[in-house]
Amino acid sequence: MSLAEKDLSPQPLAPAAHGRVYNFNGGPAALPLPVLEQAQAEFLDWGGSGMSMLEISHRDKRVVRMVDGCEEDILGLLGLGPEWRAIFLQGGASLQFAMIPLNFAPDGAPADYVNTGMWSDKAHKEAVICGSKARIAASSEQDGFTCIPKKIDYDPKARYLYLTANNTVRGTEWRSFPKDAPAPLVSDMSSDFLSRPLDLSKFALVHAGAQKNVGPAGLTIVLIRKDFAETGKKGLPHLLDYRTYLSSNSMYNTPPVFGIYIAGLVMKWLKGTIGGLANMAAINEAKAARLYGAIDGSGGFYKGTAKEDSRSLMNVTFRLPSPELEARFLAEGKDRGLHGLNGHRSVGGIRASIYNAVPPEAVEALIAFMADFQKTA
Amino acid sequence: MSLAEKDLSPQPLAPAAHGRVYNFNGGPAALPLPVLEQAQAEFLDWGGSGMSMLEISHRDKRVVRMVDGCEEDILGLLGLGPEWRAIFLQGGASLQFAMIPLNFAPDGAPADYVNTGMWSDKAHKEAVICGSKARIAASSEQDGFTCIPKKIDYDPKARYLYLTANNTVRGTEWRSFPKDAPAPLVSDMSSDFLSRPLDLSKFALVHAGAQKNVGPAGLTIVLIRKDFAETGKKGLPHLLDYRTYLSSNSMYNTPPVFGIYIAGLVMKWLKGTIGGLANMAAINEAKAARLYGAIDGSGGFYKGTAKEDSRSLMNVTFRLPSPELEARFLAEGKDRGLHGLNGHRSVGGIRASIYNAVPPEAVEALIAFMADFQKTA
Repeated sequence: MSLAEKDLSPQPLAPAAHGRVYNFNGGPAALPLPVLEQAQAEFLDWGGSGMSMLEISHRDKRVVRMVDGCEEDILGLLGLGPEWRAIFLQGGASLQFAMIPLNFAPDGAPADYVNTGMWSDKAHKEAVICGSKARIAASSEQDGFTCIPKKIDYDPKARYLYLTANNTVRGTEWRSFPKDAPAPLVSDMSSDFLSRPLDLSKFALVHAGAQKNVGPAGLTIVLIRKDFAETGKKGLPHLLDYRTYLSSNSMYNTPPVFGIYIAGLVMKWLKGTIGGLANMAAINEAKAARLYGAIDGSGGFYKGTAKEDSRSLMNVTFRLPSPELEARFLAEGKDRGLHGLNGHRSVGGIRASIYNAVPPEAVEALIAFMADFQKTA
Repeated sequence: MSLAEKDLSPQPLAPAAHGRVYNFNGGPAALPLPVLEQAQAEFLDWGGSGMSMLEISHRDKRVVRMVDGCEEDILGLLGLGPEWRAIFLQGGASLQFAMIPLNFAPDGAPADYVNTGMWSDKAHKEAVICGSKARIAASSEQDGFTCIPKKIDYDPKARYLYLTANNTVRGTEWRSFPKDAPAPLVSDMSSDFLSRPLDLSKFALVHAGAQKNVGPAGLTIVLIRKDFAETGKKGLPHLLDYRTYLSSNSMYNTPPVFGIYIAGLVMKWLKGTIGGLANMAAINEAKAARLYGAIDGSGGFYKGTAKEDSRSLMNVTFRLPSPELEARFLAEGKDRGLHGLNGHRSVGGIRASIYNAVPPEAVEALIAFMADFQKTA
């Protein structure tokens, strides 16, 4: 059966039936409706336990199985071997910005950073605070962060090369990753995690805040190669040492149980309903192609902000001819049930975040609105 | 209206109606049923937003108001003035064990710790890892952690005196706090937070993991005096510096929105249904008095593990004549819908956690079972 024959659509949000909107939020963001419905149905009594998932002990065997199962599903979806672990942390990308250098480039050790905008800039600055010799090995700043840099000036002594896989603010995304870096790659994949299959053979660590493609804010998923974890600085506070999570299966202290539970349901949805990451990527590519097509076909009324070869499949950023029209676009869009289309507060403009759980019909509704709006503008 | 005239009962768990059990978990633990029911009812569409609370942006004005309102309600319930803030963090008590010394006893500065068992021991050890001159100023170790120490050997130079307000493992609780400490008090109140009114005039910082009395695991609430926060070490990673949370109203990065939302509903329940912390304390004292009464009145069959003047109102720990009887007690209790009565895995025995949301009827059901069990043992 080819992709074309198969119905790959994520279940629609069905705004009419639920009073729900089309959700284009940058994050926290849309989650699959069947996941939310299941969580709602068993909210007072999870799996016959007689307790809410908010109330059950994290040491309960059923919860331990759920947490272990979520890790297995993540590794399975990505096709990762036993040299990898998926661990569950808290603190978002911002805590990873500190943990990574504290562990892997401590006491003035060198590390390379690629600056593609706000998030990698924050990661780099935090590494400097943490005492690393953190260096910008490439940057698209001179291009106004509209693209992914083509050339990287590697430090052969760098402990790792850090990059932000997808920039939610600027709408840029690495379509493929550096193959010639002398250091292992470390990446923030918060906003495109599990949106496509990944070859992680050059990577040592990937971190992802759950609140884009995976689940609620307050859960951070880290993929880490076991041998890399072992190279971390010793003697750090327990919660800042990745080994603490490896040796305890993410249960050194009480983990964010509800977030892991929702992430686990999303994994089942990705495996079952969607059929894996290749299918998810096909859906995401089709959604993005439709939306960029509408932008490019608008005769210049809508203008994409990212260069074509660096366009994100997750965050489609564009401008209208004036800030006044943009404000009207956002207001009238809301009236049509299209929510969260405002650009990041640091740059303005329009941003449609079309993460995994945003169904094709939401994108079609946006495209129809864009056409109508242009006629009246 | 006196307390006796007023119906102070938290709404019963109504296990029959919902297939729910009586939940005596040590944490994560029981939450008020009306809170869970409201969260369930609006799970797909929060407050007419057309989005789940898991999907809405933390920068949405309605969410910002919700977060600010939760802080106001916490400060209001405790009667704290404008010199205090309540901030929302992640990482549980374990991250506080590191953040407190990193901020307030850095670079070998002295700090006093009172050791009442596992949690304060962990806090002390983490302070040593963080480079503080952390010193045990009092300990109940020689009493097997069955009590709160009466005498404290203060270091006049200590930056703070750290204590664990309630020890969930040993079932001990500070009924009143040191008044003559030369240093400001810093306390882990995870397991008795908001269970009673508090005089915080000697305190500078209180931390509480939400998963006992407040909400889901993954949210940590910190009460901090603003002037104390300002004395913190500068140049720490952003998420380890309390000022980051103060200056951003807990929104430097995406906070654990769903946890704060549940905590906010619990605050409304404490204010509205319960009527404030004095009423909550009266309910908690009555529940504990009934249960300790049943233990003490059992002719030695049930034996409390904590000394009488140090008994916790939150975690009632006791033993049966043999481990075999304890195993049978736990199994038969489960058959009667009494869940989570096992002692902490480090000590064994029985522990009934009777947090705010555990209704008097749950305690009565436990007492009835204890009487029945004793007859058949």
